[in-house]
Amino acid sequence: MATPQIDVNADAGESFGRWPLGDEVGLFAFVSSANIACGHHAGDPSTMRAAVQAARGAGVAVGAHPGYDDKAGFGRRAIAMSLAETVDSVVYQVGALAAICASEGVPLRHVKPHGALMGAMCRDPELALAIATGLRSAGFDLPMMMAPTPALDAVGAAGLPVIPENAVDLDFDDDGINIIEPRPAAKDPELVAETAVMVASGRASTVSGRSIAMPVRSVCVHGDRPNAVAIAAAVTRALAAAGFEVRSVEPWT
Amino acid sequence: MATPQIDVNADAGESFGRWPLGDEVGLFAFVSSANIACGHHAGDPSTMRAAVQAARGAGVAVGAHPGYDDKAGFGRRAIAMSLAETVDSVVYQVGALAAICASEGVPLRHVKPHGALMGAMCRDPELALAIATGLRSAGFDLPMMMAPTPALDAVGAAGLPVIPENAVDLDFDDDGINIIEPRPAAKDPELVAETAVMVASGRASTVSGRSIAMPVRSVCVHGDRPNAVAIAAAVTRALAAAGFEVRSVEPWT
Amino acid sequence: MATPQIDVNADAGESFGRWPLGDEVGLFAFVSSANIACGHHAGDPSTMRAAVQAARGAGVAVGAHPGYDDKAGFGRRAIAMSLAETVDSVVYQVGALAAICASEGVPLRHVKPHGALMGAMCRDPELALAIATGLRSAGFDLPMMMAPTPALDAVGAAGLPVIPENAVDLDFDDDGINIIEPRPAAKDPELVAETAVMVASGRASTVSGRSIAMPVRSVCVHGDRPNAVAIAAAVTRALAAAGFEVRSVEPWT
Amino acid sequence: MATPQIDVNADAGESFGRWPLGDEVGLFAFVSSANIACGHHAGDPSTMRAAVQAARGAGVAVGAHPGYDDKAGFGRRAIAMSLAETVDSVVYQVGALAAICASEGVPLRHVKPHGALMGAMCRDPELALAIATGLRSAGFDLPMMMAPTPALDAVGAAGLPVIPENAVDLDFDDDGINIIEPRPAAKDPELVAETAVMVASGRASTVSGRSIAMPVRSVCVHGDRPNAVAIAAAVTRALAAAGFEVRSVEPWT
Repeated sequence: MATPQIDVNADAGESFGRWPLGDEVGLFAFVSSANIACGHHAGDPSTMRAAVQAARGAGVAVGAHPGYDDKAGFGRRAIAMSLAETVDSVVYQVGALAAICASEGVPLRHVKPHGALMGAMCRDPELALAIATGLRSAGFDLPMMMAPTPALDAVGAAGLPVIPENAVDLDFDDDGINIIEPRPAAKDPELVAETAVMVASGRASTVSGRSIAMPVRSVCVHGDRPNAVAIAAAVTRALAAAGFEVRSVEPWT
Repeated sequence: MATPQIDVNADAGESFGRWPLGDEVGLFAFVSSANIACGHHAGDPSTMRAAVQAARGAGVAVGAHPGYDDKAGFGRRAIAMSLAETVDSVVYQVGALAAICASEGVPLRHVKPHGALMGAMCRDPELALAIATGLRSAGFDLPMMMAPTPALDAVGAAGLPVIPENAVDLDFDDDGINIIEPRPAAKDPELVAETAVMVASGRASTVSGRSIAMPVRSVCVHGDRPNAVAIAAAVTRALAAAGFEVRSVEPWT
Repeated sequence: MATPQIDVNADAGESFGRWPLGDEVGLFAFVSSANIACGHHAGDPSTMRAAVQAARGAGVAVGAHPGYDDKAGFGRRAIAMSLAETVDSVVYQVGALAAICASEGVPLRHVKPHGALMGAMCRDPELALAIATGLRSAGFDLPMMMAPTPALDAVGAAGLPVIPENAVDLDFDDDGINIIEPRPAAKDPELVAETAVMVASGRASTVSGRSIAMPVRSVCVHGDRPNAVAIAAAVTRALAAAGFEVRSVEPWT
Repeated sequence: MATPQIDVNADAGESFGRWPLGDEVGLFAFVSSANIACGHHAGDPSTMRAAVQAARGAGVAVGAHPGYDDKAGFGRRAIAMSLAETVDSVVYQVGALAAICASEGVPLRHVKPHGALMGAMCRDPELALAIATGLRSAGFDLPMMMAPTPALDAVGAAGLPVIPENAVDLDFDDDGINIIEPRPAAKDPELVAETAVMVASGRASTVSGRSIAMPVRSVCVHGDRPNAVAIAAAVTRALAAAGFEVRSVEPWT
């Protein structure tokens, strides 16, 4: 019987100019995929390049992490952009990161929306599909990494590649959607690791105590949590102990 | 004897959100190349897409027009960025526009720096070469369109493609460098057209009255001048009357 | 019997750097109050100063026009800011304009929120009251100029000064709320003038054809409409012909 | 004989949205004045309010710390703004902070320019005087806190209040000007404290080993240095041990 596989992804490249955020080098020792901010909600061209170099050095798969163009809100505030504006913004951001990746000889492997943009796409299948289609028209035949929702099902049903994922360092509501923390606080690594093993096994517990299906191929830990490295280490160790091979999702089909 | 050729280029895509600037559709009837702002000194993802579509519709060659990340100053104020920051910023901007071009089926054909970034590159061969090399490392084997300066010679000497150009709606100092107008005013189209023919023929008059060599393959008219369309029309008509074929520069070699 | 009075207000100072918007000098000949953008949705320190100088020269009362910090969306997109963030942002903007007004010897006379911020305040009495209270705590004992809504009633009931107003160059829904045009187009000045007279008289027609009460002391015309000056001229002329004295609202009590 | 007095100032309020920077609460236990960023090079309305509240709680005098509008460069990159644009920008920023101070019942006590703006003012007496005059015209009769330079002499000679200061956690060149570190690293607190005592006594050693006069009334420690709190503690302790009373400068005359 084949060893079950699971991807562990983390957001990265979320520093901005003088303001550092997260410990990428530490984090990349324990994750298989990194979602790199693209300069709109966080990041700037030079922090993006540094994050791509760090990921390459650690053998971590690189994805794009586009968000709303709102650094003051770190992309965690909903903005009433039109569908066309949102598609254009995502194509712009992914293109910018793709150029930096190319100059570092690093393939771009997936796209995971950030924060409030992820929320908007999860709630609006039309938007999710428009963004996936827009990226494909630009030559980015990349899987969309998103929470397992009807919106992601719509993307998949259109024949576009998808990677269902969810964060294991956040709580779940009864729809299986993560409950956002605007400014993540430290959490007990072992509790997050337990959640990670459960979610990798296809189940999750919600805040109301229900057990629901959670069909993901990747689990996320947030890089801007103060003890993010310890959490990533505990998650990876627990997944290995439970018999999972931690690796990025490929081929995408 | 072959018909002499000259490219007429104009900056475009320099609107921003609610703020329109320039009449692209009018302008594109009279130019052969458009330099499209990339969202840092001007432009946003949706205005960039609209400009690419307009250029495609008019059969105008599309280039990238990166600038300093300073919308309040429209990229016309020098900013003391480091060399590495500047290279990363240009790769970011060109990558973003390249993605939008790809999604519109439009090839990206050249890169022309904007405003104070153009000035910094013209004065600093090391910076110009670093940017050209950085773009090439990202897969953008595109000619750098710049004023004919020692900096551009350095880029060419390194084996990278170049298109010498200069603006014919601005005055020249005795080094053959354009004297910038922060906010271009209306000019007599016929006077600009006369300058265009002289420059296309390889000569220019400086503000001190000297005649100098001006070895360009492209002449620029500024799209944010109030009567930009009338100027472009007069320039193109005069160049044709003087026996030039107005067309974009290709192949680049 | 006293001559009825009505204020005619217009948004102004909405240029940004290289991007002009509106014709303030033309507009100020026909309005009694100007709402000057404060650098977040539009404007910058130097355009703000120029607008204050133009208002002073024309004898127009100056108010602050704070908006969401979103130039790409011109403050016309809802942003999910917290109540505290919104209060702080408005105090910041009004303070910045107040300093520029002081250096020009111009009193600041009212505060009118812009675009999506106006919408959020009209829908949320708690937010409207928090902003009015926050301004007062900073020493800005200025009337809030807003659409006549329960939110404005709440501000008034708390003992804070208010000026009910509404735009007469936009349609009304059945709640008496203006229907926003993201990018205002030209309109027939005489039709707008007819609406202005009706609204100044205390009534409005909604898009469904109903006639409703519209108890305002000020009517707004938008300065970013292409024929804004012609509209302002027609409105002022029609109000005078109907027996109104056009002047700013004072004293506020 | 009177006890000699010296002010210890630190930059503060330099977080931005999601990105914390510095430990204000820790720092404010050891300084007498805080220079609070005004939202252009760093800070946002809510971080500004939090910094003002922290300063009030610690009994620290609050000043404004305006900088270039360049968060990506943290105000440490020169920008070629015009004199008028620079004056307007500083009036805007100080006005914004003044409003937040007023709403917290905290007097604004001085203005200290930040980073590259400080550098530009130190090199350009005309700019320094224009800014001081512009602030006064707006009602901000506040002392300018700046390095003791001919530019500051010019401000003082014009009858405007001044507080000469310099950083004691940076080296000095032979003109007595601090040599900027774009991203301050940790330093030995005791060595900084020794420099502080020497500078408070009116002398400084330059990088070339010369001893020069350093007539300051305030010494600065940078709040964004990793061990800023330990440095501030050592500086304050050493100054007290050397017989100085550490307190803000007042009255200004």
